[in-house]
Amino acid sequence: MADNQINYSVRTDLAVEAKDMYVEKEQEKKPNIKGVEIQNHEEKGIRVSYVKIDEEGAERLGKKAGNYITIYADGVKNQDTKSQENAAGVLASELEKLLELNHVPENGRGLIVGLGNWNVTPDALGPMTTEKILVTSHLFQLEYEMVSVGYRSVGAVTPGVMGVTGIETSEIIVGVIEQFKPDFVIAIDALASRSIERINETIQLSDSGIHPGSGVGNKRKELSKETLGVPVIAIGVPTVVDAVTITNDTIDFLLKHLGNEWNNKDRPFQALVPGGFSFGKKKLEEKDMPSLEQRKTFLGMVGTLSEEEKRALIKEVLTPMGHNMIVTPKEVDGFMKDMAHLLASGINAALHEKVDIDNFSSYTR
Amino acid sequence: MADNQINYSVRTDLAVEAKDMYVEKEQEKKPNIKGVEIQNHEEKGIRVSYVKIDEEGAERLGKKAGNYITIYADGVKNQDTKSQENAAGVLASELEKLLELNHVPENGRGLIVGLGNWNVTPDALGPMTTEKILVTSHLFQLEYEMVSVGYRSVGAVTPGVMGVTGIETSEIIVGVIEQFKPDFVIAIDALASRSIERINETIQLSDSGIHPGSGVGNKRKELSKETLGVPVIAIGVPTVVDAVTITNDTIDFLLKHLGNEWNNKDRPFQALVPGGFSFGKKKLEEKDMPSLEQRKTFLGMVGTLSEEEKRALIKEVLTPMGHNMIVTPKEVDGFMKDMAHLLASGINAALHEKVDIDNFSSYTR
Amino acid sequence: MADNQINYSVRTDLAVEAKDMYVEKEQEKKPNIKGVEIQNHEEKGIRVSYVKIDEEGAERLGKKAGNYITIYADGVKNQDTKSQENAAGVLASELEKLLELNHVPENGRGLIVGLGNWNVTPDALGPMTTEKILVTSHLFQLEYEMVSVGYRSVGAVTPGVMGVTGIETSEIIVGVIEQFKPDFVIAIDALASRSIERINETIQLSDSGIHPGSGVGNKRKELSKETLGVPVIAIGVPTVVDAVTITNDTIDFLLKHLGNEWNNKDRPFQALVPGGFSFGKKKLEEKDMPSLEQRKTFLGMVGTLSEEEKRALIKEVLTPMGHNMIVTPKEVDGFMKDMAHLLASGINAALHEKVDIDNFSSYTR
Amino acid sequence: MADNQINYSVRTDLAVEAKDMYVEKEQEKKPNIKGVEIQNHEEKGIRVSYVKIDEEGAERLGKKAGNYITIYADGVKNQDTKSQENAAGVLASELEKLLELNHVPENGRGLIVGLGNWNVTPDALGPMTTEKILVTSHLFQLEYEMVSVGYRSVGAVTPGVMGVTGIETSEIIVGVIEQFKPDFVIAIDALASRSIERINETIQLSDSGIHPGSGVGNKRKELSKETLGVPVIAIGVPTVVDAVTITNDTIDFLLKHLGNEWNNKDRPFQALVPGGFSFGKKKLEEKDMPSLEQRKTFLGMVGTLSEEEKRALIKEVLTPMGHNMIVTPKEVDGFMKDMAHLLASGINAALHEKVDIDNFSSYTR
Repeated sequence: MADNQINYSVRTDLAVEAKDMYVEKEQEKKPNIKGVEIQNHEEKGIRVSYVKIDEEGAERLGKKAGNYITIYADGVKNQDTKSQENAAGVLASELEKLLELNHVPENGRGLIVGLGNWNVTPDALGPMTTEKILVTSHLFQLEYEMVSVGYRSVGAVTPGVMGVTGIETSEIIVGVIEQFKPDFVIAIDALASRSIERINETIQLSDSGIHPGSGVGNKRKELSKETLGVPVIAIGVPTVVDAVTITNDTIDFLLKHLGNEWNNKDRPFQALVPGGFSFGKKKLEEKDMPSLEQRKTFLGMVGTLSEEEKRALIKEVLTPMGHNMIVTPKEVDGFMKDMAHLLASGINAALHEKVDIDNFSSYTR
Repeated sequence: MADNQINYSVRTDLAVEAKDMYVEKEQEKKPNIKGVEIQNHEEKGIRVSYVKIDEEGAERLGKKAGNYITIYADGVKNQDTKSQENAAGVLASELEKLLELNHVPENGRGLIVGLGNWNVTPDALGPMTTEKILVTSHLFQLEYEMVSVGYRSVGAVTPGVMGVTGIETSEIIVGVIEQFKPDFVIAIDALASRSIERINETIQLSDSGIHPGSGVGNKRKELSKETLGVPVIAIGVPTVVDAVTITNDTIDFLLKHLGNEWNNKDRPFQALVPGGFSFGKKKLEEKDMPSLEQRKTFLGMVGTLSEEEKRALIKEVLTPMGHNMIVTPKEVDGFMKDMAHLLASGINAALHEKVDIDNFSSYTR
Repeated sequence: MADNQINYSVRTDLAVEAKDMYVEKEQEKKPNIKGVEIQNHEEKGIRVSYVKIDEEGAERLGKKAGNYITIYADGVKNQDTKSQENAAGVLASELEKLLELNHVPENGRGLIVGLGNWNVTPDALGPMTTEKILVTSHLFQLEYEMVSVGYRSVGAVTPGVMGVTGIETSEIIVGVIEQFKPDFVIAIDALASRSIERINETIQLSDSGIHPGSGVGNKRKELSKETLGVPVIAIGVPTVVDAVTITNDTIDFLLKHLGNEWNNKDRPFQALVPGGFSFGKKKLEEKDMPSLEQRKTFLGMVGTLSEEEKRALIKEVLTPMGHNMIVTPKEVDGFMKDMAHLLASGINAALHEKVDIDNFSSYTR
Repeated sequence: MADNQINYSVRTDLAVEAKDMYVEKEQEKKPNIKGVEIQNHEEKGIRVSYVKIDEEGAERLGKKAGNYITIYADGVKNQDTKSQENAAGVLASELEKLLELNHVPENGRGLIVGLGNWNVTPDALGPMTTEKILVTSHLFQLEYEMVSVGYRSVGAVTPGVMGVTGIETSEIIVGVIEQFKPDFVIAIDALASRSIERINETIQLSDSGIHPGSGVGNKRKELSKETLGVPVIAIGVPTVVDAVTITNDTIDFLLKHLGNEWNNKDRPFQALVPGGFSFGKKKLEEKDMPSLEQRKTFLGMVGTLSEEEKRALIKEVLTPMGHNMIVTPKEVDGFMKDMAHLLASGINAALHEKVDIDNFSSYTR
């Protein structure tokens, strides 16, 4: 998350997620872009989407080539232990595939980097996950003959954020990498979400590198295979959202809802409010969005704005008053604990042949 | 905050705040209600509002008689240490006055009750504050001749919430009161806010009693002078807000903003969005709210809804999808620490003649 | 543990343990005391000792009648997860038997009391265990038809210590009991150990009541079946030891060791030190203690002192200089977490038919 | 503290302290060693001792040349806030002098390194102190014109321990130093004590370098001016002690005590125990140690052993049984908090001209 406590900005987080969002939209709307391969998949009730962008697609989309994988894991939100275990299993197998795609050798040495600020609970996902990582590289060094088959060498660091260390986070990571010389890097971070639905729900993997911290000026350093020479896998989970997004999403839900009522019930809008709504549990689809004419009726000029314009307007209203708060669900403490456990379970199982999700608890206190 | 983790509901918190909000509106709009006295006051840059409701006013307003005091303390939000100290000083003097109003004798024994769930950071304000209370009653009992003049007997408990203890919080408090026999009770709690501006900003005092926890059925027990025989002072701070409120407030800001632009700039709304807004830092006042006609133009049918109807509509849209999240600012950990320190400073200084805000740090680790 | 931070004293803790120690000695030395029944037992590698004292034995021994059970569980010390699970299983079955012995009905409502100071890690065993207790009583009240068969009604409180609350801990407990009206009480506490071997190792159960806190003067209130009308089960684990005990134990080990060397090796003591000792891993037995003559040779006048005299002398030396520290193993954080998990697993499995040690993890975050 | 959780050994910590102890003994016994300068000093009730070893003295003593400063600060132990502040002031001025002695320029950039394991309270002094360090280097980089005069550039890291990261701690530090390029390094660590009196009391400074972690084989890397090119200041506080030391110290106290009684009271030892001792508060001096003959009478053969032999014997007895526990005072949580605050106050005041002990609280939450 944003590395700079002084000039706090949500931009940095969005850098990662925006990419992903963009890809997701592509996935839904233009399934046949050249240079972009899209697949979907479901396993044990966990939905997974894959987007592969090659160099041609990268230029076309204006974003980095690489593999982008999104796991939809609502087990944490719903406090469903079984579903959390399933998601950890899916994460493990997706991570294994991604390491293979990046030609990481089976015994390759890994460095786990827990990004974020351990003093700020919704930003502590990286450090909290790292705390539960099964660390082994010192054993390989100290008494290599004792380390049993089925484990690989893994180290883990939590570099902190610039507001706490005073040091560019990327500099700390580069310093450690130069000494530790890993064969691959996995970086875990909490993200800012662009949608209220995704908070504490989606787990996003990619191999296109990370940009930790806010950086000085525009010199934000990319850490990626290009700059470090070894694959860099990013694992991100949205844990916060801003008031602009909440309002924007709600206005969209409102429009869809009103459109739905209008069409299905054939009764004038004015009748709706006093009598209450019989609106059910089902999620509103894109197709529910009412026509421009209806939108104008429902929401006036605001209803006619494009997505971009609407966001810009809300931001313009909230920001000067200091009301564009970045918020996190009230239950943040429990969510972070469960999500950190889920991520660590998945990573440990992916990295060590001898570890699987079931026996994981014996590896953590 | 809501005592029941299973049937989580924001209603209970609102019970307290709604009262206060209502009073606040009264204060702004109808300054001459019979049975209701309103005063405002500013000290060291801290604004304080007083509302006193007598039995006549209580009936008229449909709410309990008592004194309601709101302290506007934005020092925590702004991380301004000096302003936090000033607010603690104001809290101390307001609390002293309220104790006097309730005829608490100078050496009366006090019981501080830290309500809320210590495992949920935004709900932990009560326990966190209690942790910093200067506790003395055991010293009076053990070695009364050694306790110097200038201190009174104070005990403190954190009863937990029903989801954690399995027991009605009011039962635990009543059980302790029957044993400890205090002359007055001060209960500290985190509240749900009805406005995004008030989060971690207002400190609300009242002597009209508390209703801890959600209760079984409708049997929520009131703890007040009437039921306990001793004055019960409630100190509350809003620390969470729901998505309905965020959206509702934002739509209001939007309307005011658009009205403002419309009136002041004399240029059509359509011109505004592409060019961006030159909207400054000043807070929008009630009077900025545009006319009904303008509101319809800006926001269509939604613009014509009353406050109640708008909230009801947004709630109807968000609730069935599980999107009416209760959220807290990302910086919750730091805010809670600072606010707990502020409250404890104020309470300690109010209760012990020998303690003031400046020397407080020597009383806490 | 000691409830009073001001006049800190280890006496109170020892009150509980001394009893137990005494009984243990009885058990080893005088197996045929009238009114005292002693049994030993081993299960899954976990040793258990039972001492039952009836009224006659109570008078003879000068201690309360009741059942005293000690479980020797070194799995926490040795970080052996499997052995911890076994110990939790043994605790569950011993606790079940003890409840039955005390005629607790199968659906009797239980109150778990986590004694101790949550701010002092080695004293936080009670609160840490309580945090993991499966609490159900509010569910029985709220929606009794929904609670499935196989669960009983359980509530849990952490009353704190007098230095933190200013209130006699027994008063808080009595207050809660009067409101909650449980059929039985289980109180968990950290103890001071009288032997370095027992720290974080023995789990002591008894049904003879508790004396929480230090009390004012001699008026320490007993909470027991006699005073409360319902059975009170105490579960205690020694987590701290004082320097007197460490030194006293070490001098005993030293004497046994020297006696051993003397007897077995037939070489003069003087020869031992420069050449080092070949002393093996086996524990020294009581019978290894050398003769008085040998002890005088090895340790001079100190060697001739009785157990009581030796302790008194060491205490006299350390206390005035403030060197009789109460200490805890460096790894206290991890030990407390594991022991709290073990205790909560055992208690949950004992209280709810549907819960066993294996499925416990699904009940705790 | 020991960096290796697997082969836990107290040796590494002692490496640092032994040096210091040795020097201290020198100081008391041989005040006129060539190449060794010794001074003592007292300020605001805080005793400070200086030992300066030059190359000649280094060879003579078999230890590294450098400045060794010990501050005797019992304010933490005694929970005396005023005395803690005084000690922080003394630390600040000693640290300033040491930086000057090492030719650190007034605006030199500093790196603070908090050594130790944040999961093990008595080993968390480094991380806990670092958390309170006033970090500024990012401000100098980001907006250098805004940083007011009176501050210097300071960064801070907590590299963890090898059992947690899997990586040699010295490698992490070297990696960060190569990127951050500080002008000097200050490393804070918890130490193992060789005396029960020194726990949480002495603050030890030196400029002779550090050896973080346990290292692989004998390759423990020294981090010092020689290896890094910039001065490395170590700040250490003993926070744990082993059972051997406790017993050894107690036996010494016992001997001195018995000698004292023997000489002063002229009554036979046997008479002492039953009647109790009238031993006062004053500390026993070296000169109180009884003659060899008396020691033999009191403690037999053990009384005749040399210091080294006695320690070796006790260790031989305790180690095979696993009873040579490393322990920390029960009040470890509070002690660590206060000591971390004291250290951070002193360091912040030493590094920034604008910060002094009094205004420190405004710089920390």
